[in-house]
Amino acid sequence: MTTQVAFSVRATDGAARTGSLATPRGEIRTPAFMPVGTAGSVKAMLPGNVRESGADVVLGNTYHLMLRPGAERIAALGGLHRFMNWPRPILTDSGGYQVMSLAGLRKLTEEGVRFKSHIDGSAHMLTPEHSMEVQRLLGSDIVMAFDECTPYPADAATARTSMELSMRWAERSRAAFGDRPGHALFGIQQGGMHPDLRAESAEHLRAIGFDGYALGGLAVGEGQEMMLRMLDVAVDMLPAEKPRYLMGVGKPSDIVGAVARGVDMMDCVLPTRSGRTGQAFTARGVVNLRNARHRDDPRPLEEGCDCPGCTGYSRAFLHHVVRSGEAVAMTLLSWHNLAYYQRLMSGLRGAIAQGGLADFVATFDEGQAQGDIAAM
Amino acid sequence: MTTQVAFSVRATDGAARTGSLATPRGEIRTPAFMPVGTAGSVKAMLPGNVRESGADVVLGNTYHLMLRPGAERIAALGGLHRFMNWPRPILTDSGGYQVMSLAGLRKLTEEGVRFKSHIDGSAHMLTPEHSMEVQRLLGSDIVMAFDECTPYPADAATARTSMELSMRWAERSRAAFGDRPGHALFGIQQGGMHPDLRAESAEHLRAIGFDGYALGGLAVGEGQEMMLRMLDVAVDMLPAEKPRYLMGVGKPSDIVGAVARGVDMMDCVLPTRSGRTGQAFTARGVVNLRNARHRDDPRPLEEGCDCPGCTGYSRAFLHHVVRSGEAVAMTLLSWHNLAYYQRLMSGLRGAIAQGGLADFVATFDEGQAQGDIAAM
Repeated sequence: MTTQVAFSVRATDGAARTGSLATPRGEIRTPAFMPVGTAGSVKAMLPGNVRESGADVVLGNTYHLMLRPGAERIAALGGLHRFMNWPRPILTDSGGYQVMSLAGLRKLTEEGVRFKSHIDGSAHMLTPEHSMEVQRLLGSDIVMAFDECTPYPADAATARTSMELSMRWAERSRAAFGDRPGHALFGIQQGGMHPDLRAESAEHLRAIGFDGYALGGLAVGEGQEMMLRMLDVAVDMLPAEKPRYLMGVGKPSDIVGAVARGVDMMDCVLPTRSGRTGQAFTARGVVNLRNARHRDDPRPLEEGCDCPGCTGYSRAFLHHVVRSGEAVAMTLLSWHNLAYYQRLMSGLRGAIAQGGLADFVATFDEGQAQGDIAAM
Repeated sequence: MTTQVAFSVRATDGAARTGSLATPRGEIRTPAFMPVGTAGSVKAMLPGNVRESGADVVLGNTYHLMLRPGAERIAALGGLHRFMNWPRPILTDSGGYQVMSLAGLRKLTEEGVRFKSHIDGSAHMLTPEHSMEVQRLLGSDIVMAFDECTPYPADAATARTSMELSMRWAERSRAAFGDRPGHALFGIQQGGMHPDLRAESAEHLRAIGFDGYALGGLAVGEGQEMMLRMLDVAVDMLPAEKPRYLMGVGKPSDIVGAVARGVDMMDCVLPTRSGRTGQAFTARGVVNLRNARHRDDPRPLEEGCDCPGCTGYSRAFLHHVVRSGEAVAMTLLSWHNLAYYQRLMSGLRGAIAQGGLADFVATFDEGQAQGDIAAM
């Protein structure tokens, strides 16, 4: 096993690529989807089952973990991997996105962000330096630079001010991270919906030098069409020899569109959050198990899926446990959705390796459209 | 595999006995603890994991299932075993206990109980005949006679009136059940806290003839001491060659006391309900994971336990997920509690088989007492 984090591209198909991010804790096959384990748990799932669903890496949230149970406590208990019983790679965000979302409870300065905990109102400060320290204490394999996620919409002047602050914070993050063999630091491109600012940000990050590059400030309300238009120009600005990570994305069609444009890594709460509210993703579109049309349906949620919800139960049962508020509904549907997402990633990787991405995307689109008809 | 339900006692130790209840769907090792799968799911658990924890049989609730999703629907979907993905034996209660608990929403007559659904207020009627029909539609392996659970306290006149009604309903249940090879019907002894009424009830049930006999109207608020005093006299009134089932019991010490007095089967929501609120049962007493003293504790919940909560996590993690309201806390602690209960049953069976029950009980009591000290 490698002692360093090393990215390699095995095959490309148009802008899309498939390969691997090797880490001391295991290989991350790319394009990769990372389930979100916000507070030390991929919600309603046991980590062994997250792995069974096909995940190589999970994401942890610095903001949540620093407040509860606390980064020092996790470090004293042997680090986040041991704490949450997930021995494979973990990527942690910087906390920047979450603290900026605390409207009315935070204050932004050049130094960083002062904020109040959503749990107990206690005062905290996150800076690039402190974010690096928290992520080090957690033992994260892939550390994200501390940045400001530029809100949408933002005019050119606002987006520039925000991007330039993020670039100064990227420099401070890089300096504070130092040299940590076996651990990677990713920079984050900002610039709103302004291609020239995105180019300037990418150039700045490349000059600093990171182990991977993320696309920040997307999937923040601009809609899929504008996001994909931005990816058309922004992905290629990032170094081709390093992994490119699109943060917080997304719906299955977002993922397919992003991979086709050269994105290597993504994360989103959607499969687990939707699972907890009775929504399931399938090759034939979204299925809302709460809907009464499933009440007597003996068929599995999705034919051919090997998750326990599909192999063990009828749609009628899943409908029943969703309606009854049984905890097992959260587990079965989160598991199915994660299995569906990982199947999608596996399909994308195989299609790129064989030069068949266009056919794969056409079949994907056709399936999703059929689903819309079946659901009427 | 047997095509009939057949009970055999392999060994006795004092009043206690160990043996097996053979059914076409598998063997139930006795004394047996039956996890409760109220509405088609042992809450927060997948059935494969319930089995892994050591359960041979689960309980289903007629009242809940007849209202949602409905017994006819479950029958059309292939029966309760298939619906809930539990291929092994299922015991169903009669619905009597639940409908009698609907204070203000039900009316008792000689015919049965008219009641309103707690879900949507719709009007329903349960009679001995209808309860047998619902349990047949569910496909239950062990069917319970429809009875009135005598409330506590009840004076002799009230307890007699209630018991006599239950005996008339037992006769009607027996007649309505008919002849169903491979399925068992259990009668339920009533009589409140009055030994003479218990004896009369047992005699009546024996005259009707059942495949097993339950002790009803206990664990209804009388306290452990009175319950065990009643078991001292009531268990022996029931035919020794048939299984004896103490309904709705209980805490680990209740179970040990009941087994020592000759009880073969028990069920209770306690391990799963407690698990959902952060309480864990161990050989050293109850552990409340919500308590701040676990915050930094790297030790497993219980040394030597092979459940995933104990093999994969620290008490500090379990404390964190309980406090954070993570769904995984419900699963891990329910699983641990079921594993603890089944380990207790396995220990009791082994001790009885080897004639060492007194030593086993002494060690059990000592462990629980140590726990009380450790928790201070």
